[in-house]
Amino acid sequence: MVRLLALYEKPGDQSAFDLHYRDVHIPLVKALPGLRRYTISRNAVAPGGGEAFYLVAELDWDDMDALGAALTSPEGRATTADLALLAPDGGVRSMIFEVETL
Amino acid sequence: MVRLLALYEKPGDQSAFDLHYRDVHIPLVKALPGLRRYTISRNAVAPGGGEAFYLVAELDWDDMDALGAALTSPEGRATTADLALLAPDGGVRSMIFEVETL
Repeated sequence: MVRLLALYEKPGDQSAFDLHYRDVHIPLVKALPGLRRYTISRNAVAPGGGEAFYLVAELDWDDMDALGAALTSPEGRATTADLALLAPDGGVRSMIFEVETL
Repeated sequence: MVRLLALYEKPGDQSAFDLHYRDVHIPLVKALPGLRRYTISRNAVAPGGGEAFYLVAELDWDDMDALGAALTSPEGRATTADLALLAPDGGVRSMIFEVETL
């Protein structure tokens, strides 16, 4: 399995972010081809001190080929375009990796 | 489900970190009471630019009570103590959150 992890910093306007995420971004993500699992964080805290990210989203695909196909699909391009509106100027940190279960 | 997400910055000595993580930290984490799932990242990249975290670890429990009991157990205290050796001086960013599946 491969995962796309998106770590959102606290937005300037939290209610605008929440509305945009819920009403626009979630439907776009859910339309991504081959998506196996999509989770978001609720009530995040930072146990070791410091600030928790505002939102953690995790998107899973079967393998890197499926993830690549999803991101380059029309739905993927629409989602990426929306991300630039949702979290401009470094408001999100994204990573892609293979998931190894221990 | 609740998740503890640990985001490790790139260590100064990667091979020492890798050995410590594999030989010491993984066995400690796997001994935590009530742990349901434990995954780590492989071959992480940052698709949007910037630098990926060096390692992403995800530890899941059934609920916040189970997570709290694990972290305050002898095994939890040993794991936390080892974390300070493994990733000193802000080398790890940790978060705890409820996981909502969309």
